[in-house]
Amino acid sequence: MRLYSYFRSSASFRVRIALNLKGLAFETLPVHLVRHGGDQRNADFLALNPDGLVPVLLDEAEDPTARMTQSLAIVEYLDETHPEPPLLPAEATARARVRALALNVACEIHPLNNLRVLRYLTQVLAIGDDAKNAWYRHWVETGLQAFEAQLASSRETGVFCHGDRPTLADITLVPQVFNAQRFDCDLSSMPTVMRIHAACMALDAFARAAPGRQPDAE
Amino acid sequence: MRLYSYFRSSASFRVRIALNLKGLAFETLPVHLVRHGGDQRNADFLALNPDGLVPVLLDEAEDPTARMTQSLAIVEYLDETHPEPPLLPAEATARARVRALALNVACEIHPLNNLRVLRYLTQVLAIGDDAKNAWYRHWVETGLQAFEAQLASSRETGVFCHGDRPTLADITLVPQVFNAQRFDCDLSSMPTVMRIHAACMALDAFARAAPGRQPDAE
Repeated sequence: MRLYSYFRSSASFRVRIALNLKGLAFETLPVHLVRHGGDQRNADFLALNPDGLVPVLLDEAEDPTARMTQSLAIVEYLDETHPEPPLLPAEATARARVRALALNVACEIHPLNNLRVLRYLTQVLAIGDDAKNAWYRHWVETGLQAFEAQLASSRETGVFCHGDRPTLADITLVPQVFNAQRFDCDLSSMPTVMRIHAACMALDAFARAAPGRQPDAE
Repeated sequence: MRLYSYFRSSASFRVRIALNLKGLAFETLPVHLVRHGGDQRNADFLALNPDGLVPVLLDEAEDPTARMTQSLAIVEYLDETHPEPPLLPAEATARARVRALALNVACEIHPLNNLRVLRYLTQVLAIGDDAKNAWYRHWVETGLQAFEAQLASSRETGVFCHGDRPTLADITLVPQVFNAQRFDCDLSSMPTVMRIHAACMALDAFARAAPGRQPDAE
């Protein structure tokens, strides 16, 4: 498989973890999101993905024409085409819980803090760096606090977000914690989040997917 | 089933469409997101869902303790527990396409325009109404233009977003178009989006789920 990826992109990070957990080899095709205004805005890349977003997964052995986008859709695809080890539990309400945790990060936290949003704040609304960083921390901290409350209030939370093996929820949580740490967010009130983050990062599949270990890392 | 819902909430609207498509009866439990600072911030509601977000689905016949959150996770749950009619296609890359379209709306457009984000812009960043409305239209218009490009460039687009019956992608698109129209966004460059929106709204399951037809509509 081939993955269009940027080392710091959380969404790319999620897919790298899933590929590693499944034991699937992949080639990284770097897309630099910052340099020269962003390679994702080049005509060649937009022809591949009109959204201008990474990651994009090509699985040419399965379907030579498919260009898969949106990290959570890609992870579900990998789970359906390579069922072992499963990234979702078996039972329907448990699957709903894991997907809801993942969507909490993917819909409530991450979209407010990606590059294009921060650019709009500084370039169009002309807010300063302090206000931009406060915006960033506000959404990450309130979002992860809600995530912590979800984890702490459920008997289904285990070594990982759901039980004792990693799922889609952990795959989505870990890159968000990386971002939070990079922007000096206060994570002291989130012991369950941080315990699970450490359990994940002790696994080779998560550690190898980290930004600093990618071929395009700076 | 019982659904905590607000008539104008797009995420609640998605779940109402899915319940109607599945032919499942449900009781609406209204949560007013605006009045008195928002019922979703009451202690009773936060005990139910620490995120303070609607929708929440209770399916007591299946599991008396489950409180399901996050609209896309709920729709997947309904599709797994009530398979007919299916809301996702059968084949893995087609499922990935439908999920990616839904996530395009749920992750790239909707999170930037919900109530709490607009409140932060006006209350914390003190931007005026014109700048707030420009922000709203910017994300909706660029997001739906990318959605249009995805639809227009694929042979898999049919009467609906994927083929000739409604899927998770249509369920997510229609509430976003409602919001766009309410805020006077320019949708003139999106003929495929608008054609599919009209095809959806001709179906009773979509029409009955619309904000104006809910028991808490104002």
